Amino acid sequence: MSFKEFEFISQLPKASHPFLSTGIGDDAAVFQGSFPWAISSDALAEGSHFLSEDDPYEIGQKTASVNLSDMAAMGCEPCFFILNLHVGSTWTETQKIERFMAGLLDRLKSFNVALIGGDTVRSKERGLQVSGTILGKPYGQGPILRSTAQVGDLICVTGALGGSFPKRHLVFEPKVNMAKEICQRITPHSMMDISDGLAQDLSHICRLSCVGARLELEHIPIHVDALEHHRGDCSRALQAALSDGEDFELLFTIAPEDVAKIPSELNVSVVGHICAENKLEARSNSEAPWLPLEPKGFSHDA
Amino acid sequence: MSFKEFEFISQLPKASHPFLSTGIGDDAAVFQGSFPWAISSDALAEGSHFLSEDDPYEIGQKTASVNLSDMAAMGCEPCFFILNLHVGSTWTETQKIERFMAGLLDRLKSFNVALIGGDTVRSKERGLQVSGTILGKPYGQGPILRSTAQVGDLICVTGALGGSFPKRHLVFEPKVNMAKEICQRITPHSMMDISDGLAQDLSHICRLSCVGARLELEHIPIHVDALEHHRGDCSRALQAALSDGEDFELLFTIAPEDVAKIPSELNVSVVGHICAENKLEARSNSEAPWLPLEPKGFSHDA
Repeated sequence: MSFKEFEFISQLPKASHPFLSTGIGDDAAVFQGSFPWAISSDALAEGSHFLSEDDPYEIGQKTASVNLSDMAAMGCEPCFFILNLHVGSTWTETQKIERFMAGLLDRLKSFNVALIGGDTVRSKERGLQVSGTILGKPYGQGPILRSTAQVGDLICVTGALGGSFPKRHLVFEPKVNMAKEICQRITPHSMMDISDGLAQDLSHICRLSCVGARLELEHIPIHVDALEHHRGDCSRALQAALSDGEDFELLFTIAPEDVAKIPSELNVSVVGHICAENKLEARSNSEAPWLPLEPKGFSHDA
Repeated sequence: MSFKEFEFISQLPKASHPFLSTGIGDDAAVFQGSFPWAISSDALAEGSHFLSEDDPYEIGQKTASVNLSDMAAMGCEPCFFILNLHVGSTWTETQKIERFMAGLLDRLKSFNVALIGGDTVRSKERGLQVSGTILGKPYGQGPILRSTAQVGDLICVTGALGGSFPKRHLVFEPKVNMAKEICQRITPHSMMDISDGLAQDLSHICRLSCVGARLELEHIPIHVDALEHHRGDCSRALQAALSDGEDFELLFTIAPEDVAKIPSELNVSVVGHICAENKLEARSNSEAPWLPLEPKGFSHDA
């Protein structure tokens, strides 16, 4: 069976989208819209972001989801996706690639995102290497950046954190609809998705915005997976919630008066506030002293 | 030396471009312009598109050039570049990655293209796998497609063809300026770059445009590299010009009256014409019969 049969391009659904003006087959896809476009790209490697024994369908889902999550993090509606596959010798079964594509396309379709192009090469190596690139347009006036947190902002997170390995990191729901709900009601001053752990990702917002942050540890939502993983040890589960990677929840900062505009069913937690001094601190309760918090998070290269 | 030091993101020149509204550090880059944008992506694999012994600087050049060539092929001015690197164990020397990045950035800079984002992952494999994505805006009314060749068009190519291996395919000059010169004077009906060989790439234009093509073999410009490679055997050199991959010259079709508007210094050859019947034919001279031409070209997976 020749490699040509794996070429995902033949499996593309007929791409159609209000902002897309050509289909598949040209040297490039063409799109148009007078608003600001956001573009983001993520590379996934077998052995780091997924394992050889993971279900190809779920690897496909994750490939779409990590990129969709970047659009959510920018307050943008995802529109177009581009896929590059480096296919190694352990992935040359048609069925395996087809399951990967099914997972990817199902996830894209559920958010009305068109796959508009890409490339497939056979690598001389073993595993699969994937690159996804995504384009989106802002729900509000413009994309929400990391660099525009303001002193006095409340720090918010969606969902619950920690323990995303070994399973949830593959099949998580990207917070696209959540971002839309939030951005239709308020304009967060800054936003990102939590991929390297709350503490580390919050330190990125602080560095880029030239501000500091103080976290109220008792308000951090700990995922049941983190509690289970640490057998009910709350202290270690909290540490996991602060530093585990690949939660893909939204981390954002808002003007204090906006907190009342977020409906309770969105399950948003206020976990701290932005301060002027360029430091990251935390306290275990309102009676406890503020202590320095190390921005240790998850590294794919640890 | 930790992998973090290879992260190309720290090596980014301060990205600035008239259509770019944010810099580096956010979940996505943001750009804006009310014209149609063209976007294209190419994946390169060690062992297929470059070899482990090739100069990393030239591999970086090629990574930029194949994508720049796609913008030229669409009649578009390249604007932004996104780079994803899958770095295997044979590429963990800082110096090697730095030389790759220097080649890539020098080439992008020479065409005023800003590197606006990307991702770097360490793969568990050996070699380097690269994905490049490029965005551009049309020189004329809109991008030039493959699917709009018209019956009666003259078929044109730039430069000379064949023999791009083992050297020229790495260091070729993408035909960005040539595309600009052409598109400022005339509007080609269809255009693409020659990456899989003239015959095969022309068959793509024919299939997508629902037309056929007839080639005048005596007018096909044969590269001196093809003649040298085949030791002056003109017949084999012609075959190389028809079927060798990675020439990255422009292949385009134009209205017959436009041929006079192309200045001779652009070194454009008229090699045939588009016909209504959906077939690919060639003749060796104007006295010879038309014979079927197999669209055999180069395959990276041969």
